[in-house]
Amino acid sequence: MTDSMLRINQFRDERNWRQFHDEKDLAISISLEANELLELFQWKTSEEAKGNSERLKEELADVLIYSYMMADNLGFNIDDIIAEKLIKNARKYPVSKS
Amino acid sequence: MTDSMLRINQFRDERNWRQFHDEKDLAISISLEANELLELFQWKTSEEAKGNSERLKEELADVLIYSYMMADNLGFNIDDIIAEKLIKNARKYPVSKS
Amino acid sequence: MTDSMLRINQFRDERNWRQFHDEKDLAISISLEANELLELFQWKTSEEAKGNSERLKEELADVLIYSYMMADNLGFNIDDIIAEKLIKNARKYPVSKS
Amino acid sequence: MTDSMLRINQFRDERNWRQFHDEKDLAISISLEANELLELFQWKTSEEAKGNSERLKEELADVLIYSYMMADNLGFNIDDIIAEKLIKNARKYPVSKS
Repeated sequence: MTDSMLRINQFRDERNWRQFHDEKDLAISISLEANELLELFQWKTSEEAKGNSERLKEELADVLIYSYMMADNLGFNIDDIIAEKLIKNARKYPVSKS
Repeated sequence: MTDSMLRINQFRDERNWRQFHDEKDLAISISLEANELLELFQWKTSEEAKGNSERLKEELADVLIYSYMMADNLGFNIDDIIAEKLIKNARKYPVSKS
Repeated sequence: MTDSMLRINQFRDERNWRQFHDEKDLAISISLEANELLELFQWKTSEEAKGNSERLKEELADVLIYSYMMADNLGFNIDDIIAEKLIKNARKYPVSKS
Repeated sequence: MTDSMLRINQFRDERNWRQFHDEKDLAISISLEANELLELFQWKTSEEAKGNSERLKEELADVLIYSYMMADNLGFNIDDIIAEKLIKNARKYPVSKS
């Protein structure tokens, strides 16, 4: 288990929050956090938005934290599911065609 | 840099895709992938949705892959931004109050 | 009740679908449809995306249809809630300051 | 043009806001407002969420207002695109099969 996953699990276990983390609600949370990140780009170009480095860090971290919680709830290893998805994507988009 | 980040960077660099990965579009992509994950829970309970393990792995991996790309574009270290956000959250939600 | 609301209600009542339309799931559906609309703009400028008029019509209609269903479930009159929100927005953003 | 569309157009024209309403940003706004509505259901059942009637009215109105602006920008008639989409849906989901 990675350091990040250990820290996230410790955070929610210390607060006994795991009982509230129904996976449907976690999926809603990931979507909400993704849109808080997206909001930093609303009515802006990427260049303009990138000035807001602190908020970008926080909102991107929130997407990751809820995604890690979801992975843990479902018994998925983060690095494994990423590696497997990249293999699938590589079949769909071979290097030779790009 | 973690193995996952190395794999993701290799994947997009082999295809010369980094040039297309404007951060505003990456933020849109994270939101879209988050909702493809959420769609697996639409009209279902968590228990019903959890049966679809393969799709859950894929969609959660997509959220993570785009989030890692965003972090890399912005020069953020994943583990650092997660650790910093958990420290902020811990101040906001002390263990003693939960 | 507007013609659109009558048509939408007729559509779901003929299929006995109202029983499935739990409001939390309708809220998820509005978010999913909003992102299917947003997907038409992914990796594109507005000008490029606007060429896809048929899909834009369909996805925008889906956002509206689910929003109308939600309004009907909650007993809200569409024109009333829009008018009330515009009054609130007008207070927040007076003409003189824009 | 419906009363709601007239009111919305008047609101943005009085403030000269139409110039800022690039369609890609409107699509982002619809997604963001849809998720502010969804947030009212986070960690709740529909029954619990429905108690918050004022906020539900406001957030649903925001989804509608941005959707109406998008329709107006694209030259779509709201009632027409809803009617056309319901016809397509009716072919896909005939009454006899439901």
